[in-house]
Amino acid sequence: MFKKNHGCRSAGVLILFLGLLWVQELSASTLRPNVVIIFCDDLGYGDLACYGHPTIRTPNLDRMAREGQRWTSFYVGASVCTPSRAALLTGRLPIRNGMCGNRRVLFPDSAGGLPAEEWTIAEMLRQVGYKTSCVGKWHLGHLPQYLPTTQGFDHYFGIPYSNDMDRVAGAFQGRDGFWDPKSEYWDVPLLRDTQVVERPANQNTITRRYTEEVVRFIKSQSESPFFVYLAHSMPHVPLFASARFRGQSLRGLYGDVIEEIDWSVGQILDTLDRQGISEDTLVMFTSDNGPWLVFDQHGGSAGLLREGKGSTWEGGMREPALFWWPGTIRPSIVRGLGTTMDIMPSLAAITGATLPADHVLDGVDLSAAWFQSGPSPRDTVYYYRQRRLYAVRKGPFKAHFVTQPAYQRGGPVEHDPPLLFHLEHDPSERFNVADEYPDELAEIQSVAKMHLANMEPGDPQLEKRIQD
Amino acid sequence: MFKKNHGCRSAGVLILFLGLLWVQELSASTLRPNVVIIFCDDLGYGDLACYGHPTIRTPNLDRMAREGQRWTSFYVGASVCTPSRAALLTGRLPIRNGMCGNRRVLFPDSAGGLPAEEWTIAEMLRQVGYKTSCVGKWHLGHLPQYLPTTQGFDHYFGIPYSNDMDRVAGAFQGRDGFWDPKSEYWDVPLLRDTQVVERPANQNTITRRYTEEVVRFIKSQSESPFFVYLAHSMPHVPLFASARFRGQSLRGLYGDVIEEIDWSVGQILDTLDRQGISEDTLVMFTSDNGPWLVFDQHGGSAGLLREGKGSTWEGGMREPALFWWPGTIRPSIVRGLGTTMDIMPSLAAITGATLPADHVLDGVDLSAAWFQSGPSPRDTVYYYRQRRLYAVRKGPFKAHFVTQPAYQRGGPVEHDPPLLFHLEHDPSERFNVADEYPDELAEIQSVAKMHLANMEPGDPQLEKRIQD
Repeated sequence: MFKKNHGCRSAGVLILFLGLLWVQELSASTLRPNVVIIFCDDLGYGDLACYGHPTIRTPNLDRMAREGQRWTSFYVGASVCTPSRAALLTGRLPIRNGMCGNRRVLFPDSAGGLPAEEWTIAEMLRQVGYKTSCVGKWHLGHLPQYLPTTQGFDHYFGIPYSNDMDRVAGAFQGRDGFWDPKSEYWDVPLLRDTQVVERPANQNTITRRYTEEVVRFIKSQSESPFFVYLAHSMPHVPLFASARFRGQSLRGLYGDVIEEIDWSVGQILDTLDRQGISEDTLVMFTSDNGPWLVFDQHGGSAGLLREGKGSTWEGGMREPALFWWPGTIRPSIVRGLGTTMDIMPSLAAITGATLPADHVLDGVDLSAAWFQSGPSPRDTVYYYRQRRLYAVRKGPFKAHFVTQPAYQRGGPVEHDPPLLFHLEHDPSERFNVADEYPDELAEIQSVAKMHLANMEPGDPQLEKRIQD
Repeated sequence: MFKKNHGCRSAGVLILFLGLLWVQELSASTLRPNVVIIFCDDLGYGDLACYGHPTIRTPNLDRMAREGQRWTSFYVGASVCTPSRAALLTGRLPIRNGMCGNRRVLFPDSAGGLPAEEWTIAEMLRQVGYKTSCVGKWHLGHLPQYLPTTQGFDHYFGIPYSNDMDRVAGAFQGRDGFWDPKSEYWDVPLLRDTQVVERPANQNTITRRYTEEVVRFIKSQSESPFFVYLAHSMPHVPLFASARFRGQSLRGLYGDVIEEIDWSVGQILDTLDRQGISEDTLVMFTSDNGPWLVFDQHGGSAGLLREGKGSTWEGGMREPALFWWPGTIRPSIVRGLGTTMDIMPSLAAITGATLPADHVLDGVDLSAAWFQSGPSPRDTVYYYRQRRLYAVRKGPFKAHFVTQPAYQRGGPVEHDPPLLFHLEHDPSERFNVADEYPDELAEIQSVAKMHLANMEPGDPQLEKRIQD
């Protein structure tokens, strides 16, 4: 255990202060909706029909978009798995809780995990009476002291890390096994709470079984509100889809996988409808990072955005994001900024739950944007790669101090002066406008400097190994 | 005049035969809806919110998509202006009617145009009682014998060619005038029927005035069905938007222009609603070719597609395409193939109008797909650049015999063996799969060979100059 006093930095104090004010003001009208967060793995910005994919069919996600909010500038906390998940669940940049490093994610031999003193959305909501369930990929530590049941979840069912880990020695050569994957090539465990119930997990049916688990949980709930965190193992390679979806998509196996995830979304929405609780439930859909482009047709598409997973170009960190709450969230497209780190303070604001007093938070409350009572209050996004700040967005402008192609495609390139892109004019990051906007560039440089001066990194978790 | 006997090739005979059968079968239930075709200039596949653009707001086009059909694999007949427009209006590949060549489009000094013996949608619909109006960019010949009023339109109001022509000598250096365009830099005429009514046309208000013209025309109609062909001059550079749209879009001037076009669509839909004729009107929206990428932020985005205007990569020839006919066309996304050349035979099938008996047509009847009684019958797309066949799509596969970057960015590259892409798996044309699908490649090569063997090119129109 690594107890740290993170101190109270000015941003954190301000956010907490505003958060408390907000809770006080809203106390008369506190809402305690059920909350379902659906989080994919390596889904690209361009992979859903409602974000412009020409051949992947996603009628249920399109329904969420049509009946709810579709955000077009929604970001994750990191462009790879472990840090991005830590950011979502804690509302904090991964650098603060040590969940990023040169080993980019946790591996089966990792001894680290999300520190116990970190406060998660599940812990926060449980405190105000929520029943909580985590289903799917965890990837925030698989030793007993790090499992979901230690971080506020009543239940857990899932593969605790990436589905391409525990590769069976000699099962296939090079990457051949990815192109025609067999579940037995990867000896990953499937856990119920803290116990391994299947190994290797049969990945062919994993999306279906995660879905059935969530549907059962929802049906079993009665009085209390509930929180479900469904973190699909898909569409991370190796790709698996149930028999009824295999070979059905125009987009090949990758499309089959997305269409099964879409089916899963439909099962959940239908269950909420049938239980008569749709109007009492906030459903969110997004992913941990962009498409893993080095896997060719087995990786997704970032649409018009540049690059993918592992990169701090937009394709690595901007994701589809849908928010659905019939009767409360009105249909719209939101073009303001949001991040996964904003979910926790937004849910605190709505439910009246208390945010952690001793942690600097990086999230802001988006509920005004959800309820269309005001714009998103976020105007800055920090793009870290591993433990280094590569880029900062402020308003429409993004400065790159360092760039690097997507995961496994090349080394870092320093930029002095930084590159500057106007993302509202040029979402594909094609035109460096640093010369045209010197003041805006200087402002971002100053914002970055202040951010780094106030940053107190957490104890690195990802370098720790079991054999150490 | 260039009278030619085009003869009846087998494809043409088959299409005519099927067309006649169709008309006979449907004669009891012939429909004569009003028809409005809205055709943009240089709009990219990724430029509308409903096709995934993150910052351009297109609520009226989104409404068309939500209430009607959004096609995701809809093609134009050429990747530049003049030939693409000829293809739409005649249902024929431009090579057949001579409307393509080394001078890529018609210019103010051109003496050619769409030959009088070509049969247009307007002529066809007038024959079954339609009132017809052409508003906007014509670009099929501006000498008196080629104007819209000679090709089946009762009325014409618009700029007869591209808005970047008739550049005033010395008005600006290089391309500077495009970045901050003034209407007086381009001495283009504005015509009413056959008379110049304004020169230079005030382009600042051109989208608004085209719209008002269409709204007036629709309101003036009573008994007969009508056909409106609204061909916006925008978003072709130089970009112009009315004062109330300038500076309003997050996407800069290009976004302002698209948002005014979207407003225009809204004016037309609202007029149809107010006149009580929405359910009797088929509205279509598409564009002539992809974005003009060499104009940087003043060009659009092809989204996830490769390249743009001038190119036979997908970004040059695949376009947004919306079909709206409340009560008849049910909301859906159509992933089958379609082209602008299919509009004419589709309208013939619906209205019972006769297709030209002495012309080979390249279009097929899409009405089954509109009415969801069957899939699109199209399975092949021919990609010409100027007068040469560069690529062929058959089903999901596209073979490139020659590739060339977008307009003005490089010369042709021959491919022997051809490149082969699986467009349903790989819409961005990233992975050459020629080695994996030799049979499919051979089939496309054979289709291309037969197509070329049967092709009888029309007399070239674009090389003719007034001074000749």
